[in-house]
Amino acid sequence: MSELRKDPIIGRWIIISDSRKLFGNGEISSVIRKENPKCPFCVGKEGMTPPEIVAYRDAKTKPNTPGWRVRVVPNKFAALRIEDKLSRQGEGMYDKMSGTGAHEVIIETTNHTDSLVDLPLEILSEVYFMYRERIMDLKKDERFKYILIFKNEGSLAGASLEHSHSQIIATPIVPKRVMEEMNGSLLYYNLKRRCIFCDLIKQDLDFPDRIIFETEHFISVEAFASRFPFETWIIPKVHSPLFEESSDTVLKDLALIMHKTLKTLNKVLKNPPYNYVLHSSPVNFKYNEKSYHWHIEIIPKIGKIAGFEWGTGFYINPTYPESAAKYLVKAINET
Amino acid sequence: MSELRKDPIIGRWIIISDSRKLFGNGEISSVIRKENPKCPFCVGKEGMTPPEIVAYRDAKTKPNTPGWRVRVVPNKFAALRIEDKLSRQGEGMYDKMSGTGAHEVIIETTNHTDSLVDLPLEILSEVYFMYRERIMDLKKDERFKYILIFKNEGSLAGASLEHSHSQIIATPIVPKRVMEEMNGSLLYYNLKRRCIFCDLIKQDLDFPDRIIFETEHFISVEAFASRFPFETWIIPKVHSPLFEESSDTVLKDLALIMHKTLKTLNKVLKNPPYNYVLHSSPVNFKYNEKSYHWHIEIIPKIGKIAGFEWGTGFYINPTYPESAAKYLVKAINET
Repeated sequence: MSELRKDPIIGRWIIISDSRKLFGNGEISSVIRKENPKCPFCVGKEGMTPPEIVAYRDAKTKPNTPGWRVRVVPNKFAALRIEDKLSRQGEGMYDKMSGTGAHEVIIETTNHTDSLVDLPLEILSEVYFMYRERIMDLKKDERFKYILIFKNEGSLAGASLEHSHSQIIATPIVPKRVMEEMNGSLLYYNLKRRCIFCDLIKQDLDFPDRIIFETEHFISVEAFASRFPFETWIIPKVHSPLFEESSDTVLKDLALIMHKTLKTLNKVLKNPPYNYVLHSSPVNFKYNEKSYHWHIEIIPKIGKIAGFEWGTGFYINPTYPESAAKYLVKAINET
Repeated sequence: MSELRKDPIIGRWIIISDSRKLFGNGEISSVIRKENPKCPFCVGKEGMTPPEIVAYRDAKTKPNTPGWRVRVVPNKFAALRIEDKLSRQGEGMYDKMSGTGAHEVIIETTNHTDSLVDLPLEILSEVYFMYRERIMDLKKDERFKYILIFKNEGSLAGASLEHSHSQIIATPIVPKRVMEEMNGSLLYYNLKRRCIFCDLIKQDLDFPDRIIFETEHFISVEAFASRFPFETWIIPKVHSPLFEESSDTVLKDLALIMHKTLKTLNKVLKNPPYNYVLHSSPVNFKYNEKSYHWHIEIIPKIGKIAGFEWGTGFYINPTYPESAAKYLVKAINET
């Protein structure tokens, strides 16, 4: 049986069709890490990266030496460069801008073989403290309109280095998808005077057939109009437009629900490659802070993308999110 | 050096950053076909597919027997089903629809090992005649709002069967990306009273640094704000909102430019996997026929998608389209 479903925030329709195998083409390749003496992100190799921007490290240890727990360095192969002056140019009908921005790497652990779920919760919390700190710092630069934070886990998900890390890209534009979410949620707010995310959370908790975990401050949930099997969103329960305004308590709870959620996805999908992306309000930008609500979208990389999705923005998902949720909840109950 | 570029039709910004290797992570896997006695699309295996919908075949040969050149059958694993009654439902705040639609396969050749460039131009023309014929037939069903035609070449591009084929999906919704193009081009038309595609073609022909081929009726061009290396568009030179209104002459010329373009991409990229998607106006739908312009977008599957693109609609392309064009034009001149 198949069904069309509409993303309530941006209005994108997707097809859910489970006439094929549960996980699409059924190919899941587990992420496996092997010690690599040439890895520039390992402790003791600090000289192999550009000089660090900031690190959480033990008292009395010096920058670019061991003693750190979470460390931020410029991306050696930066897609955007902070030195470039922001300039706008036309070429007849075409518009372009200089490649001004920042591109940084957050190294999440000293240990090459750790994945995010192997980190003690105190370290994982520090990873999220670091996201917050870097956003606060980068938004001081008024050229930037968005601070994009994402993680690629596994080479199939685009990671070019195996050692666990996240990336930050500060850009002079707001990414299209985030802009659509801003516009969609503003439309809803103007109609209802309520945040659409807050309303969705309420309904999802009342009919919890897609809920995976609920903690004090968060839910993790299979999205109603998931584009991909096991697409999982982590959303703060209390309205909050800006990730970077989260307290230590909230970020520690984020570490907790992220740990639990990834661990469960790992159990059911056997350590799949995945991407997650932080969606938060643009910076240096006027918006209605009552209408937008930050969240993290996790997309495991299983099955194949048929390809036409790139050309159409139209997706076929072989797995009902309610079925995915059942698998995940069953795995939790078996633990 | 890197640069931000804006798609003039839908307004999406992308980053072009050639600080990395030319083709991204540089991995191109060539599509290779091997004879497969179990292939249901080969001539003589007509009984292995659902009964054919239509075929171009030699006089006096019967349906579902050899003698065909291009053959259309229902997709055995259809994502949408034509029998399902179209119904709309709410689930609290969520919207859904029955999975009503059509999902067909166009088998482009009798011969298992042929790729599209191996086909004689008369057969390739018949493939495009068949696209036209199926659209004309499917649009009679007023439940359908869009007839999506696309091709996945190679398993890395999502093809589950090796034998060369295209797919047709008729849906009760207009895919998001097409809707964005309709809206973007209407906005331009309302400002200028001209089609944005026609204006872009004119500028591209005046400054042809991204043009690959020009035939009597078409150009093939590396898109200004390409999301992917070697993203190539084929656009009719004369304004035309609907693919299915193309004459035989125009479609024969489409076969010619597609053959030349794919052959050149194959030469430079060594038979890469690719997807192409036909963008044409929605059906049974009010639109301004002066503002939209059909075209085909070809996306070779080379390098890796970093992953955050799914979450953001924001792309980093490691290859300038002008550089891609130089490689392609050089290859043409060497022939």
